[in-house]
Amino acid sequence: MSPSDLHPDVAPLAFLLGRWAGPGRGEYPTIESFGYVEEVTFGYVAGKPFLVYGQRTRHATDGRPLHAESGYWRCVGGGAVEVVLAHPTGIAEVLEGSLEGQRIALASSALTRTATAKVVTATRRVFELEGDVLRYRVAMAAVGVELTHHLSAELARQEGPGS
Amino acid sequence: MSPSDLHPDVAPLAFLLGRWAGPGRGEYPTIESFGYVEEVTFGYVAGKPFLVYGQRTRHATDGRPLHAESGYWRCVGGGAVEVVLAHPTGIAEVLEGSLEGQRIALASSALTRTATAKVVTATRRVFELEGDVLRYRVAMAAVGVELTHHLSAELARQEGPGS
Repeated sequence: MSPSDLHPDVAPLAFLLGRWAGPGRGEYPTIESFGYVEEVTFGYVAGKPFLVYGQRTRHATDGRPLHAESGYWRCVGGGAVEVVLAHPTGIAEVLEGSLEGQRIALASSALTRTATAKVVTATRRVFELEGDVLRYRVAMAAVGVELTHHLSAELARQEGPGS
Repeated sequence: MSPSDLHPDVAPLAFLLGRWAGPGRGEYPTIESFGYVEEVTFGYVAGKPFLVYGQRTRHATDGRPLHAESGYWRCVGGGAVEVVLAHPTGIAEVLEGSLEGQRIALASSALTRTATAKVVTATRRVFELEGDVLRYRVAMAAVGVELTHHLSAELARQEGPGS
């Protein structure tokens, strides 16, 4: 399954490689719930020990761009996974967690932000592959609300690894 | 110069839009100096108040991939610029600074990292456009070394805005 030039450190994450798309739903106590469509890509650089991650969402009904994020995923031994993300909302997010089978559970270990960004104090993310469907859930503590479910989506594989 | 669907907040940064490439040089007290070639892209999403930034470097002589980084640039009024970057080395970087003409001076306001990443405590970056040449310099305080010049490059515009 792994491309031959994928760094062996990230081979345990090879099941994520490719382009994914599908519907999601957002909710939070401070906002109106909303539907979205998402596109996620996991790529790699030959011989480098990380995956390249990018994500974009659009509103489900009017199609306007909503969120985006980009960053890198690493495996650092013993099933440990590290993720670093930049958000266009002025937030930088560092997540750490573990991989079991094709399920990755991550918790924020650091969240920092620019002067004008909203305060996000903690996040949890779970990704799980079943067949060709990648599901994720995101919980967030932000703007004074404790850790609360925020996003869930179900993405179908659009292209296989190496593309 | 600005694409018509560029969010007006980031119009002052429109001079960065496009793809840039050229040579750079890296040095630091703890490493051997090295030459690299770099490709940088500044993109945008219609109607969203940020630029999408990505960068990759390769070794100047053997062409092997070296660094990469990705993130977002924002203008938040009064010439203030905010940048959020993710690094595949496990580092998340928040920079703040200002734009004067076509020169942007940034300093890290927050640097966080995963458990296995090297300790970087401060960075400074200056970007300056002259004609179709974008020059930058990066200084870094890391692994116990105080703020010291690290990188410089001179990039030529490969494609214009909107491409």
